Amino acid sequence: MKLVHLNEQAGFQDKNPKMTVIHESEFMKVINFNFKAGQGLPLHSHDIEGELVLCVLSGTGEFLAKDSATPAAPGDTLVCPIATPHGVRAITDMRVLVTIAPPI
Amino acid sequence: MKLVHLNEQAGFQDKNPKMTVIHESEFMKVINFNFKAGQGLPLHSHDIEGELVLCVLSGTGEFLAKDSATPAAPGDTLVCPIATPHGVRAITDMRVLVTIAPPI
Repeated sequence: MKLVHLNEQAGFQDKNPKMTVIHESEFMKVINFNFKAGQGLPLHSHDIEGELVLCVLSGTGEFLAKDSATPAAPGDTLVCPIATPHGVRAITDMRVLVTIAPPI
Repeated sequence: MKLVHLNEQAGFQDKNPKMTVIHESEFMKVINFNFKAGQGLPLHSHDIEGELVLCVLSGTGEFLAKDSATPAAPGDTLVCPIATPHGVRAITDMRVLVTIAPPI
């Protein structure tokens, strides 16, 4: 059992998103991304089985899909096959929790 | 690809926690629990393989383990084998996102 206080993570980085792997096992990978305003993950996909859950913890931005950008606010949660193009862009500083199962 | 605005879920229930399954697949099960102050999930476990991620979206409470109760605030995230006794108790109204992989 592992408890992570994401609020206490080291915060944001100027050049690139702050990525912290908080758990990795045979079942899942859990990552905290902290994006400064303007940062994000460009539209991408991996040609493998599995799904990801992306939950906005704080801040606002957009979920990116192939032909769309959808507003993302705290509590908004995206569930997506890993093989489907997805991305995220922060409008304000934005903290996100991503769970990938099975792990990449 | 599925986008859920957890803020727009139907809220809380007086008698029991409001449980909304927002996704279920061969890879994972994703559930939103909304607990009114005083509600929770008592300490329990399932004798199966797999893990769960429990992330506090809003409100405060406690994560329960066999011999302890640990404060839980927004962003606090518990990663736990499903077979390890775990629970949660809301002190204020509390919204939680739970991801279970593989799904129960």
